[in-house]
Amino acid sequence: MRNPQLNRHGELTHLITTEGLSRQILTHILDTANTFVPLAQRDVKKVPLLRGKSVFNLFFENSTRTRTTFEIAAARLSADVFNLNINVSSASKGETLLDTIANLAAMQADIFVVRHEASGAPFLIARHVAPHIHVVNAGDGRHAHPTQALLDMYTIRHFKKDFTNLRVAIVGDILHSRVARSNIHALTTLGVPEVRAIAPLTLLPSGIEQMGVRVFSDIKEGLKDVDVIIMLRLQNERMRGALLPSAHEYFKHYGLTQEKLALAKSDAIVMHPGPMNRGVEIDSAVADGPHAVILDQVNFGIAVRMAVMSIVAGASA
Amino acid sequence: MRNPQLNRHGELTHLITTEGLSRQILTHILDTANTFVPLAQRDVKKVPLLRGKSVFNLFFENSTRTRTTFEIAAARLSADVFNLNINVSSASKGETLLDTIANLAAMQADIFVVRHEASGAPFLIARHVAPHIHVVNAGDGRHAHPTQALLDMYTIRHFKKDFTNLRVAIVGDILHSRVARSNIHALTTLGVPEVRAIAPLTLLPSGIEQMGVRVFSDIKEGLKDVDVIIMLRLQNERMRGALLPSAHEYFKHYGLTQEKLALAKSDAIVMHPGPMNRGVEIDSAVADGPHAVILDQVNFGIAVRMAVMSIVAGASA
Amino acid sequence: MRNPQLNRHGELTHLITTEGLSRQILTHILDTANTFVPLAQRDVKKVPLLRGKSVFNLFFENSTRTRTTFEIAAARLSADVFNLNINVSSASKGETLLDTIANLAAMQADIFVVRHEASGAPFLIARHVAPHIHVVNAGDGRHAHPTQALLDMYTIRHFKKDFTNLRVAIVGDILHSRVARSNIHALTTLGVPEVRAIAPLTLLPSGIEQMGVRVFSDIKEGLKDVDVIIMLRLQNERMRGALLPSAHEYFKHYGLTQEKLALAKSDAIVMHPGPMNRGVEIDSAVADGPHAVILDQVNFGIAVRMAVMSIVAGASA
Repeated sequence: MRNPQLNRHGELTHLITTEGLSRQILTHILDTANTFVPLAQRDVKKVPLLRGKSVFNLFFENSTRTRTTFEIAAARLSADVFNLNINVSSASKGETLLDTIANLAAMQADIFVVRHEASGAPFLIARHVAPHIHVVNAGDGRHAHPTQALLDMYTIRHFKKDFTNLRVAIVGDILHSRVARSNIHALTTLGVPEVRAIAPLTLLPSGIEQMGVRVFSDIKEGLKDVDVIIMLRLQNERMRGALLPSAHEYFKHYGLTQEKLALAKSDAIVMHPGPMNRGVEIDSAVADGPHAVILDQVNFGIAVRMAVMSIVAGASA
Repeated sequence: MRNPQLNRHGELTHLITTEGLSRQILTHILDTANTFVPLAQRDVKKVPLLRGKSVFNLFFENSTRTRTTFEIAAARLSADVFNLNINVSSASKGETLLDTIANLAAMQADIFVVRHEASGAPFLIARHVAPHIHVVNAGDGRHAHPTQALLDMYTIRHFKKDFTNLRVAIVGDILHSRVARSNIHALTTLGVPEVRAIAPLTLLPSGIEQMGVRVFSDIKEGLKDVDVIIMLRLQNERMRGALLPSAHEYFKHYGLTQEKLALAKSDAIVMHPGPMNRGVEIDSAVADGPHAVILDQVNFGIAVRMAVMSIVAGASA
Repeated sequence: MRNPQLNRHGELTHLITTEGLSRQILTHILDTANTFVPLAQRDVKKVPLLRGKSVFNLFFENSTRTRTTFEIAAARLSADVFNLNINVSSASKGETLLDTIANLAAMQADIFVVRHEASGAPFLIARHVAPHIHVVNAGDGRHAHPTQALLDMYTIRHFKKDFTNLRVAIVGDILHSRVARSNIHALTTLGVPEVRAIAPLTLLPSGIEQMGVRVFSDIKEGLKDVDVIIMLRLQNERMRGALLPSAHEYFKHYGLTQEKLALAKSDAIVMHPGPMNRGVEIDSAVADGPHAVILDQVNFGIAVRMAVMSIVAGASA
């Protein structure tokens, strides 16, 4: 069976998940992003690639920041962008998701950027739209956040050049993290020989070893000699939940401090998808220190989203 | 007295209601829309007709979908669009409607697209703005929804070619429907010889016969040999109100099923302004069946709104 | 110490407050605005000065109207504008203000337009951004509202030509007004010989005389022979508070009526930053009368904001 993200020519027509995408496709996205990064330094930060195309930001779950990065990326491709917060709209009027989508598609959309609290919603949408419409997943439930993973891959490649000799640690609430899942798939596909998952046992999904990951519950062991550290955000609700004793306790054991960072390689980079909880998952001295590449991730994120939108929009129908 | 939607040259300068507009003006809008429909297939779906003009979406009542259709239409005319949800703004600061409008007009607006829960608000605004500003009604109370009626007319003309030999049935909550009112005026003006209103007696406005409409409370009689069926949305609050026993009961008597549809002409089209309540006013088999032209309505709606905005903006001041 | 709004070449790189800006800089802004005012009459109301630049509207405090004026000004400079209502976003996720700003800056922002309920927030932001990013204060707490003051100065100059022979009265809730503070600084710098503050004692900040202002608690004395009257908005919460007996009582003593207006010069102009409380701080006969220039203020406000954004964006990094 064909990967549902590819059309019959094998071109990327939707981006739903990094799972199952080939190294060649991931690399093509990173290479395309590379051509957009220098735009940021230019006086006019735009290219006419998507002029006259319509990008719909469909955010069924609120996220001003992610929505804004897609809005910026689309504007820099010269597309027209329309923002729809769907929770205050049709969803409350009893319309089904697929009717909402069919309606918006009839408004001659070219790209749907979808964030949804339900895992699988972007895939469901992609299955039901006409072939000239492209779906980009901006985060669905605990399932996937592929553009975040791709910008993380871009950042790693930028600083480390080669994936095939790296040790990468992902630290934190892996159980609830779509970022972790998407990163593990991408890292593995791109040839990273050792991916580590560092988390308390209550925040580890069962069977994660089958994704090709080494599991550590002791962060000091886990960080030893790694090249890349990907910190995950700890959602507020976890700090009060049954899974963790307290934010303070979490920081003590899993918060990234300079002391713990010293166990990694001396040129290790520290990443975080934001927004950060300083003093919970990461210490300010690390967040603002020389190893952190967190703002580079944000910067590269615009170019990566431009790359994804221009690639899927260019796929033949 | 001159129709307040026309300027002294008889040109359409505001669109407030289909009532009182001549067949010539309605046809001019449909013909203009016709020139915009092919844009949807083009690579760059834009024309520069309103470049540098400012369209203000003034939504005193929330409606993401209708707002979005106007936003898309304005963007495809190359206008700058500014969205204002007024309920969260000045209205709560004690400012009068006319002061709000005067202020926005002073920001050099060209077109106000107005949705308001009060019938007559767009007309009040049109009476108070300078002649170079144009008002388009996007739905006011129970009064009028002229762009919906015009896209319905476009859809009917597209599929049936000629208005003068048609039987058109409007089915549902006619009492509360601005769509029904605007459609009845447009259909009558365009020469439809027989317009039928099908509804329970509690959802029929008194005196509707004086609009030139035949009334039916039995849907099976009403649908007999019709060419066009316009279903109306049943607002959620009606289903719990005193006017109707229940949504289930309503569907049994007035919901459009394949069985009832079979009473109409074999090439009848089924329309709905959306969002649909499947299983309340319409059965899924009909909504997704070959007679439904509901998504065509949405598609044509963009072109019709482009036509209306470009026509009023082109009227001499 | 250098004024933090100026770069090392003495150019305006941020606009945080009118306090401390030279007459030359204020005049340069007004002169630049003057070149944009005629745009409103043109068919295409745009200039390409900020094409490909990114303006972020960061409204930590809701204000649809002010946000819209900046959005219009940026669109007319051909910039891409991104609206962020931050209260519903990262702020609620525990991120610090400076992390939010650093993130948005990494998205390659050029201008931040900031409204914040905390006095000093725009200055804090300006201190932490890279030199190629420019901050424009759209109102911070009780501190400053410099673009409102500048559009007031533009309006005064438009109608009165020369600042150096004017008596200007500011009337109302001066204690809580960032508009009053910014106006007093600008008027004084531009050479207005007599600025009067007219307010009940409970709504006067202590030490205001040290700003070079003559204080009047009797409006009839205060308005005598003035050329310009700047009315301030009375916030709803003041009307119920301990500082004032009632809105009705306030109107009786400080509301601007035709009778009180007759005490000013016969060609006096009446200004108000909006939104107006008719019958509280101003009588409708005055608001709609021949002395009012309130809508001119709004009109000029677009040009002044275009001027400010184009000037700061043009400052060398």
